[in-house]
Amino acid sequence: MAKMHHSMIRALDEARSISFYEAAFGLQPCHRMDFDDFSLIYLRNPEDDFQLELTVNKGREEPYDLGNGYGHLALNVADLDAEHARFKELGFNPRDIKQFDKDGKKLARFFFVEDPDGYKIEVLERFGHFA
Amino acid sequence: MAKMHHSMIRALDEARSISFYEAAFGLQPCHRMDFDDFSLIYLRNPEDDFQLELTVNKGREEPYDLGNGYGHLALNVADLDAEHARFKELGFNPRDIKQFDKDGKKLARFFFVEDPDGYKIEVLERFGHFA
Repeated sequence: MAKMHHSMIRALDEARSISFYEAAFGLQPCHRMDFDDFSLIYLRNPEDDFQLELTVNKGREEPYDLGNGYGHLALNVADLDAEHARFKELGFNPRDIKQFDKDGKKLARFFFVEDPDGYKIEVLERFGHFA
Repeated sequence: MAKMHHSMIRALDEARSISFYEAAFGLQPCHRMDFDDFSLIYLRNPEDDFQLELTVNKGREEPYDLGNGYGHLALNVADLDAEHARFKELGFNPRDIKQFDKDGKKLARFFFVEDPDGYKIEVLERFGHFA
């Protein structure tokens, strides 16, 4: 049976992205493949077998067009408030914490943040379906 | 520590996307949240704790702009040739199988396919870093 292995996004500045993903989520490079025109860098943390792949096209300076189709990568954390405060302190400019309720019961609690290329990332409280 | 939970893409036609992801990868809806203007549908298979989230905005008919930043979701499979043949038979129009080598040794073997909204998906042989 098929198993999800990674999600790929194109990044302009390898060092900037690696620094962000490590500080924000503990993701670190675990594998790379270098070709003449581009590099592929795979990030993971010990909690995950799923990986985030960065494609860096050498010499590219023009920001990527993020479109309106792809939404976000979502990660869950144990202590959402602590992470939100930590992100603020790191200067990552997280949006406000929001909560989805249904019939007075909490469904989800989360905030959004953007990576250095502007890709949206959802940080979810480890709760309910998002545990 | 943060754990990757899902990746979200916007889809035009819920039934069409669910049908594709189930036939192609055995992913099935495991959770949904319905709101006035949109629905969120989470897909997974028994191999995965990572999920694919579909956002369906009600009444939207205009195709999404996929941009050039987001690349793909990648899944691995045990028998790449068999899956390639099966995808062809299902009319999914998979691209040709390709292989990355380095110093005469296989690094990766894969093909690409598109989902009903045109999002690229990489199907990898379960091998090496992609096992």
